Amino acid sequence: MALPMSPDELEAALRQIGAERYHNLHPFHRMLHGGKMSFGQVQAWALNRYVYQSAIPRKDAALMAKLEDRELRREWIHRIHDHDGLGDEAGGIERWLRLTDGLKLDRAYVTAMQGALPATRFAVEAYVRFVYEHPPLEAIASSLTELFAPAIHAERIAGMLENYSFIDENLVAYFRRRLDQAPRDANFALRYVRENARTAEQQQAVLAALRFKTDVLWAQLDALHFAYVEPGLIPPGAFRPG
Amino acid sequence: MALPMSPDELEAALRQIGAERYHNLHPFHRMLHGGKMSFGQVQAWALNRYVYQSAIPRKDAALMAKLEDRELRREWIHRIHDHDGLGDEAGGIERWLRLTDGLKLDRAYVTAMQGALPATRFAVEAYVRFVYEHPPLEAIASSLTELFAPAIHAERIAGMLENYSFIDENLVAYFRRRLDQAPRDANFALRYVRENARTAEQQQAVLAALRFKTDVLWAQLDALHFAYVEPGLIPPGAFRPG
Repeated sequence: MALPMSPDELEAALRQIGAERYHNLHPFHRMLHGGKMSFGQVQAWALNRYVYQSAIPRKDAALMAKLEDRELRREWIHRIHDHDGLGDEAGGIERWLRLTDGLKLDRAYVTAMQGALPATRFAVEAYVRFVYEHPPLEAIASSLTELFAPAIHAERIAGMLENYSFIDENLVAYFRRRLDQAPRDANFALRYVRENARTAEQQQAVLAALRFKTDVLWAQLDALHFAYVEPGLIPPGAFRPG
Repeated sequence: MALPMSPDELEAALRQIGAERYHNLHPFHRMLHGGKMSFGQVQAWALNRYVYQSAIPRKDAALMAKLEDRELRREWIHRIHDHDGLGDEAGGIERWLRLTDGLKLDRAYVTAMQGALPATRFAVEAYVRFVYEHPPLEAIASSLTELFAPAIHAERIAGMLENYSFIDENLVAYFRRRLDQAPRDANFALRYVRENARTAEQQQAVLAALRFKTDVLWAQLDALHFAYVEPGLIPPGAFRPG
């Protein structure tokens, strides 16, 4: 195997994966942010994305279950707080449900996830499973899609507020909050990966982990696009816009 | 299989397991609390018990990784805070290290766990693994040894302060805190198990989980007793009192 990269070279390779594979490039997102979608298509997106949002704390707990370093656990746990909330703070999943509420989706229907696409659930569970099955370094590297998130969130907030009459500030609260949270998280994870992926083998594993994660995100949009855009073949049991 | 028990009958069966199998009955604890141990034996106990303490947040994270119910995760996460600390609060593992500090054990030696008995590590990892591999109901039931903990902690605080000149209030801070924390946790878990173990099969699994957990605790004392009391055969590489 080749010699290890420097930390800067590794970071450049990670950012290159984002430039080539992050789901901001998917035509579904282009349409969503550009105001090209119907109310029902936006509903389908929010409903399916809930499956991903709601699994994130399980993913982070699966990582923490492997961390023998107390300081690292103490740092990582705030990601669970961010999503599940803590005490009076409701958390990101609750903010996501405000979006689905605003889109007139019944909460019990959303949280039961019965109307979500099977491919969404498979992709999400593949992510949780990946974190279970891989070393902490690779699990942490798989979170690095957050490096690329602020740009898409900013574009989404502006685009959706401008283009859809049914979207208001209350509905984009989730994304506003992530504008602060994601960079903090991504910077921590990036520093960790830069410092701990030392051998060429570890570095290749880290790059593969991030590629895998971009696949998890991309596959969710492929499934949405197939079912709700083109050819528009909604699988049996999945949400049908009213 | 027999008919299911009522919740009260189930609780009685769980408490019976404690009465018969909890490690307060082990002769090692009788000696420890009764002032019958040397400084070196108390060191060996604290050093080995650190392995258990430090794994508890991983065990709780392994459970949380399976919990799809956000409210249940929001409740359970405080157990991780209790042990790892949160923000300025140092947490139970830090309080345990104050005990090992007070017992003149080097922190790096304690946290590296190299001087711990292999049987301690095997028992502790069996516990973490059990939680990974069993349904949440059984994982939660395995935490129910906390029902029996306050009595042993109260006895330990009184006995050790009275019987050992090298034990003071600062060193028993961990146990003082657990006098409040353990009942809250145990009552929550007991309520959960009473409400969710409905079929006879679930109830038998819940009882088996608690029996397993009492085995995990008992096996740790057997190993300590064998190595440091009688016959006093310390395995290669394990801590040797100076």
